[in-house]
Amino acid sequence: MGWSSADKVVVRGHDLNDLIGNVSLGDFAFLELQGRLPTPQESITFNAIAVTLVEHGVTPSAIAARMTYLGAPEAMQGAVAAGLLGMGDRFGGPAEEAARMLQESIDRDASSIVARYREQKRPVPGLGHPIHKPVDPRTTRLFEVASANGFSGRYVELMRAISEEASRVSKRDLPVNATGAIGAIASEMGFSWRVCRGLAVMARAIGLVAHLQEESAEPMAAEIWARVEEEASEHGQKRD
Amino acid sequence: MGWSSADKVVVRGHDLNDLIGNVSLGDFAFLELQGRLPTPQESITFNAIAVTLVEHGVTPSAIAARMTYLGAPEAMQGAVAAGLLGMGDRFGGPAEEAARMLQESIDRDASSIVARYREQKRPVPGLGHPIHKPVDPRTTRLFEVASANGFSGRYVELMRAISEEASRVSKRDLPVNATGAIGAIASEMGFSWRVCRGLAVMARAIGLVAHLQEESAEPMAAEIWARVEEEASEHGQKRD
Amino acid sequence: MGWSSADKVVVRGHDLNDLIGNVSLGDFAFLELQGRLPTPQESITFNAIAVTLVEHGVTPSAIAARMTYLGAPEAMQGAVAAGLLGMGDRFGGPAEEAARMLQESIDRDASSIVARYREQKRPVPGLGHPIHKPVDPRTTRLFEVASANGFSGRYVELMRAISEEASRVSKRDLPVNATGAIGAIASEMGFSWRVCRGLAVMARAIGLVAHLQEESAEPMAAEIWARVEEEASEHGQKRD
Amino acid sequence: MGWSSADKVVVRGHDLNDLIGNVSLGDFAFLELQGRLPTPQESITFNAIAVTLVEHGVTPSAIAARMTYLGAPEAMQGAVAAGLLGMGDRFGGPAEEAARMLQESIDRDASSIVARYREQKRPVPGLGHPIHKPVDPRTTRLFEVASANGFSGRYVELMRAISEEASRVSKRDLPVNATGAIGAIASEMGFSWRVCRGLAVMARAIGLVAHLQEESAEPMAAEIWARVEEEASEHGQKRD
Repeated sequence: MGWSSADKVVVRGHDLNDLIGNVSLGDFAFLELQGRLPTPQESITFNAIAVTLVEHGVTPSAIAARMTYLGAPEAMQGAVAAGLLGMGDRFGGPAEEAARMLQESIDRDASSIVARYREQKRPVPGLGHPIHKPVDPRTTRLFEVASANGFSGRYVELMRAISEEASRVSKRDLPVNATGAIGAIASEMGFSWRVCRGLAVMARAIGLVAHLQEESAEPMAAEIWARVEEEASEHGQKRD
Repeated sequence: MGWSSADKVVVRGHDLNDLIGNVSLGDFAFLELQGRLPTPQESITFNAIAVTLVEHGVTPSAIAARMTYLGAPEAMQGAVAAGLLGMGDRFGGPAEEAARMLQESIDRDASSIVARYREQKRPVPGLGHPIHKPVDPRTTRLFEVASANGFSGRYVELMRAISEEASRVSKRDLPVNATGAIGAIASEMGFSWRVCRGLAVMARAIGLVAHLQEESAEPMAAEIWARVEEEASEHGQKRD
Repeated sequence: MGWSSADKVVVRGHDLNDLIGNVSLGDFAFLELQGRLPTPQESITFNAIAVTLVEHGVTPSAIAARMTYLGAPEAMQGAVAAGLLGMGDRFGGPAEEAARMLQESIDRDASSIVARYREQKRPVPGLGHPIHKPVDPRTTRLFEVASANGFSGRYVELMRAISEEASRVSKRDLPVNATGAIGAIASEMGFSWRVCRGLAVMARAIGLVAHLQEESAEPMAAEIWARVEEEASEHGQKRD
Repeated sequence: MGWSSADKVVVRGHDLNDLIGNVSLGDFAFLELQGRLPTPQESITFNAIAVTLVEHGVTPSAIAARMTYLGAPEAMQGAVAAGLLGMGDRFGGPAEEAARMLQESIDRDASSIVARYREQKRPVPGLGHPIHKPVDPRTTRLFEVASANGFSGRYVELMRAISEEASRVSKRDLPVNATGAIGAIASEMGFSWRVCRGLAVMARAIGLVAHLQEESAEPMAAEIWARVEEEASEHGQKRD
């Protein structure tokens, strides 16, 4: 991806010094992944996806990172790593899975796609949200940005059709959620589903660093620990 | 440390097949670290240390591992790794630090050692415990086992003298805690302080796997998350 | 799993002080996982499995741990964690997968099990080895130990039958390898397949600490880095 | 840092939907860390720092990530985490350490600062580079960008004075390197030294995802492993 000599660092064919001060972090990430700088439309859309993926709430990842920081405050890299490790099938996978469904089934219709998930008793990725009801506000906005920049094509259409079909056959509201929207838009932009979990991971690293900065100023890990410990200890003593 | 050919695996000069079924996991760990099998006395004492280091309570490490497992149940290695990452200066370092103090100062007396920590306003490692008062019960037992097996020499003596001196000058009870005892006994057995954090890490991995097995049967991570999230969200909404 | 008060630590219903000095690390791991101490037969067999899982060669895990230690020598827990993270589907999963196959199909016959893997074009877990040919020496020994201790029942039988059937239909030698043997024996001992990856993880943590101790004495990471870097740089410069 | 309700996600007081499509990833990171959006000058300078920190070469971190991916290709988060874990005292700390030196000694002069490092026989952070000689090209560019945007004040001045003084007393060229420049500029922008390692961690996560994307297309880990294994095995067999 890059190389360097005594007086030069080269990244994906660009002199790094031409990029420093001229290219934003998001656009640089695009360059690293796609091998070329984004067009203005790609830049807006890619940064929109990345910003949405940062995630800021107190997720299990954020709690794991804060607990780790409590034990090893000297090694912030370890706390960020611990937080990232929770981005597996349940919390990191969905964007990947939605993109994969779309990319592998782009030539099929929504009803056969939904039918297969129902047969396998697996939830269709990218649909529904426990809090954001009836509609995930981020989805509306992401599709708006994508459409304004020319990334509202077959994948977005298929994702929406899947949502309608899944809602129809399951008889409950299953709107496209933010990860479904991201999976569709990333597919429009030519990202392989294989890298979608990676997009979430890089964005989440930013959120975790911010959590840890907050933890060092306003700690909450010790308090969480104390409460959990107390309950577990009471429970254990009663049982033994 | 080892090599293998088509019909043989060799570990530290032993045919692995001579070890399987004859050597316990703890003794095998000793072999890997010291390059030879332990004597019966070494075996008892090393296993005693290792068992104590496993740690079973609901520590920040255990909470981090359980939160990670919640997000990535398919990758237990990630949850164990997340748990280990909290074994830094605050929770993994003390045994290392106690062993280092003893090994670097074995020719000095307790009062000069304690004086230096007080000058630098740093706590003396291996002393005191928030819960186990006035005495850490594990210390008594560990020193008993070490003494019965010939590992109660200069390092154990120095650790005890440091405890007495620190208690005297600070005018409060600072008994040797379990990590202090382990640091001293590991030093008696010839382990470099550099590997003491590693002893804690390998033992803790066992405890974390047990925590995760329990988490899969009787989950607590989702409940912890829900409570933390609710409070954080209320707090955030109020502030904004 | 445990609790503690001022003068006592209790693990799985046992006073920790009754365990320290009397119970080996492997038996303690059994206690943590099964909730009771092993019988002598269980102890020998469980330790045999664990010892085999430690793994001592220069695996990708060991290289990752050593590279990490090069960058963060102050945080050995991070280097062990990095090493564990490579124990996924390719290197940590097989024992889990073999145990799962046996536990989920214990009432079916080998030919239908093998047929299903062939249909799905997936390799049967627990069979074959790139180096240990024609027979994995560890398998012979593990089955011997298991049999001598009463753990050679239906699961071991099924694993062997699967090996024969797979060899027959694929027309090449596919003997049971060490992870296949471990998956079968762990099943005999009542371990759920869900915890088998965990057994590998805890054992491997020991091997990784030993690797890192060796790395600190006889470093190889810097040399590996230098060689890889040089080649990559030449390659990059040529391309640009 | 944020909260959400059924129809809204709020980050640092901003409706997330106002940010998506309008704010770049780098500016969003600034918002998360500083609690407000950057000015245009801050945006250019902060993104310049972040882009430089991404790092693209085949570092030990990148090798660890690739080795981990080889073993666990299904869990990209684990491979990124493994890579981040190498950003410790040797590879992640320098920017933190340079910023800390500047922030803690801003009222002292360069000669007393350099003298103290020499007394303690520790290298002055942020100076010199094994490849980029006589000058790190990134430093020149970073200082240019910082100066053009109003971030060339006391910290940059002190960093330069320290470089001159260290070169003078050690009688060899010790120019400010990229991490020294970043430490100085981050200080100018009001970032605490405590978060500087975090800036490197978040940027590096991007580079690691790009490495792993490349690894999945053009693998090098298996080849590295094969070479290391072969040498280690020969060496081991000779010794035993």
